[in-house]
Amino acid sequence: MRQSQLFTKTQKEISADETNAGTRLLLRGGFIDKTAAGVYTILPLGLRVLQKIEKIISAKMDDLGAQRLVMPALVPKKNWETTGRWNYDLFKLKGAGGEEYGLAATLEEVATPLAKKFAFSYKDFPFAIYQIQTKFRNELRAKSGLLRGREFLMKDLYSFHISQKDCDEYYERVKEAYFSIFKQAGIVQDTYLTLSSGGSFSKFSHEFQTASGAGEDLIYLCDNCGIAINREIKSEYPKCPECGGEKFSEKKAIEVGNIFKLGTKFSAAFGFEATGGDGCKLPVLMCCYGIGLTRLLGTVAETSRDDAGIIWPETIAPFSVHLMELESKDEPANRRIKEASRRIRQDLQKNQIEVLYDDRAGKSAGEKFKDSDLLGIPNRVVVSAKTLEKNSVELKKRAGLETVLIGFDGIADYKF
Amino acid sequence: MRQSQLFTKTQKEISADETNAGTRLLLRGGFIDKTAAGVYTILPLGLRVLQKIEKIISAKMDDLGAQRLVMPALVPKKNWETTGRWNYDLFKLKGAGGEEYGLAATLEEVATPLAKKFAFSYKDFPFAIYQIQTKFRNELRAKSGLLRGREFLMKDLYSFHISQKDCDEYYERVKEAYFSIFKQAGIVQDTYLTLSSGGSFSKFSHEFQTASGAGEDLIYLCDNCGIAINREIKSEYPKCPECGGEKFSEKKAIEVGNIFKLGTKFSAAFGFEATGGDGCKLPVLMCCYGIGLTRLLGTVAETSRDDAGIIWPETIAPFSVHLMELESKDEPANRRIKEASRRIRQDLQKNQIEVLYDDRAGKSAGEKFKDSDLLGIPNRVVVSAKTLEKNSVELKKRAGLETVLIGFDGIADYKF
Repeated sequence: MRQSQLFTKTQKEISADETNAGTRLLLRGGFIDKTAAGVYTILPLGLRVLQKIEKIISAKMDDLGAQRLVMPALVPKKNWETTGRWNYDLFKLKGAGGEEYGLAATLEEVATPLAKKFAFSYKDFPFAIYQIQTKFRNELRAKSGLLRGREFLMKDLYSFHISQKDCDEYYERVKEAYFSIFKQAGIVQDTYLTLSSGGSFSKFSHEFQTASGAGEDLIYLCDNCGIAINREIKSEYPKCPECGGEKFSEKKAIEVGNIFKLGTKFSAAFGFEATGGDGCKLPVLMCCYGIGLTRLLGTVAETSRDDAGIIWPETIAPFSVHLMELESKDEPANRRIKEASRRIRQDLQKNQIEVLYDDRAGKSAGEKFKDSDLLGIPNRVVVSAKTLEKNSVELKKRAGLETVLIGFDGIADYKF
Repeated sequence: MRQSQLFTKTQKEISADETNAGTRLLLRGGFIDKTAAGVYTILPLGLRVLQKIEKIISAKMDDLGAQRLVMPALVPKKNWETTGRWNYDLFKLKGAGGEEYGLAATLEEVATPLAKKFAFSYKDFPFAIYQIQTKFRNELRAKSGLLRGREFLMKDLYSFHISQKDCDEYYERVKEAYFSIFKQAGIVQDTYLTLSSGGSFSKFSHEFQTASGAGEDLIYLCDNCGIAINREIKSEYPKCPECGGEKFSEKKAIEVGNIFKLGTKFSAAFGFEATGGDGCKLPVLMCCYGIGLTRLLGTVAETSRDDAGIIWPETIAPFSVHLMELESKDEPANRRIKEASRRIRQDLQKNQIEVLYDDRAGKSAGEKFKDSDLLGIPNRVVVSAKTLEKNSVELKKRAGLETVLIGFDGIADYKF
């Protein structure tokens, strides 16, 4: 993409009412725009990152054999009443014909009756369904930017089982898949499996908590085995339930995912049972598994940055290469800089490398470098009068300090 | 995909309260599920179709140089008040902190102030932004299935210009792009460019109306030039405004798209102007362009079907080939049928052909054929004891009547 064509621009200053540092960088870079408190527009640069996150997640869900669908945001009141969650922190609204809805916050209320329509016999189990869909939460305050939105994008997976063993095994497979997702998203090194309250059907549920000073959660990390305990249940466990360890480090953290064994809580509410081989009725066991995509975007921006801007991991960066031409006062040199830049861009794109091409005229080198650091694309490739003299470009990694010269004939096949 | 693994099933009967024939077939086939009146879940088979429609549309938008983003569904009341549309048929809701929102129905109210944040100088124009996003409309009645939902998926494109000529030219380009989209979606032969009310800034707006008995609109098609006039303005035009023709055919139709020159209606409301080269202020001209994706899905199902089911155009079919193994009572033959089917599936998939593999056990040939007709996949490939004898499969086009035998060694490279 040519940066001169991008309709967004970087901004030096943004409103002080946004206090989350990562979200501030996303706003300044033109990745997102704030439409209202807790409500954001995902701009073209941000959408590129979000689509990569979506691809990573959906590929893992497909690997787990989950079938993708899209449930609605308008969920009838009666569904919420069936599960006793109408008093959950839902946005509620009434239609012209008097129908009442709660906006999708989590969707056991739709997934369960839907599954019931198609699964009758033990032979129909197990199965799992997932979606990547906009969710809503009626937060009284929305002060942590993308980390806690009133409207946000979420992946929710629901699995259905008729044996506890099968349920437990699938749960473990999803746990592994989640770590693999967080690894690909570049936050696994700070992300801890965290024990949390399990409800009626399981001793614990599991959260995936990414350590960050911007986090709204508090976790206690066992110094011995590395599992963490959520603040909410810490007082019940003076010793680590996993290894018996007694030393913990307290950390602020962002909950980037959670998985939960629901037992029959929702299937029973909707009268969802299966018929066994012997004709007997079998209870249906459910698990749910969530990852907030916009929160993950905000978490990466929050945890992978420096004073100058974001440092995107290569896997989810909006582009791999930020190709930058620096104008020269010498017109013939300028023409050659432009020619070289265009050719390099073509060559990189031929090799499937995604390039943001800073072809903006009238911008100083300083402005371009500043913008580049803010946008955080992993590889900066500069073409200037100086590099041209050596038939080379200057490569700098966003995450590093040193610059190297690479010959024109080597850049297309360079392993970034 | 293996049909035995698909969690949805076809249904013989569905609730009589769904009257739209295309939507009934989509429900029976397991493409969608009805969550509430006017509110549908898109099931895995339906999502495959919708994703293809999305791909066709987004490719065309990218060709038009439009930049993709995602605006929110929660739109603050003050945005709607700025344009005087708070009394539009919006779903309205109030948050815990007292904030009021109207759910996204169309989004000039977000697109315009957003564009204003980034475009100041005449040099920043023209540009266009688009999204594919869930929309909401507070319909008193929702009786036409997917053709008029309370919640639906829509592509909305907004373009911004500072010259009328540029605006007019872009408008014409989008018009062409729309016909190309409807051609790819398989409905262009029944789709008419239709003159409709233009508002304050243009004599006409343009709708794309697909003739169908299920349509809620009425259009008058000029027998001479083939342009149509919407019922709403027909009385003003006894003669065709395009060619002067006086003979019209009345048709019921579904509005599958519309494009509208907005002039400065929204830019003026938000105080959005550009600075010209001479420092003078220039008015910003806007156009908006919509296509409902779920409505398009419903329109294809409505207009491309027979008594037995849907007939998907190859371009948006959920799969290209419905590979079906028919069980034999002879066990060795059965094994060979399964072996052959699996090999054919692998070979087809190696050639990037999408296959739904009906590997369900215990289903009669009649049941499988019925399901296949209902699902409407363009090519049905049958492996049975009979075809096995000739080392062949039986191919039947969903849209045709005849069957042909194709040798095992020819099926992988067959040009469907």
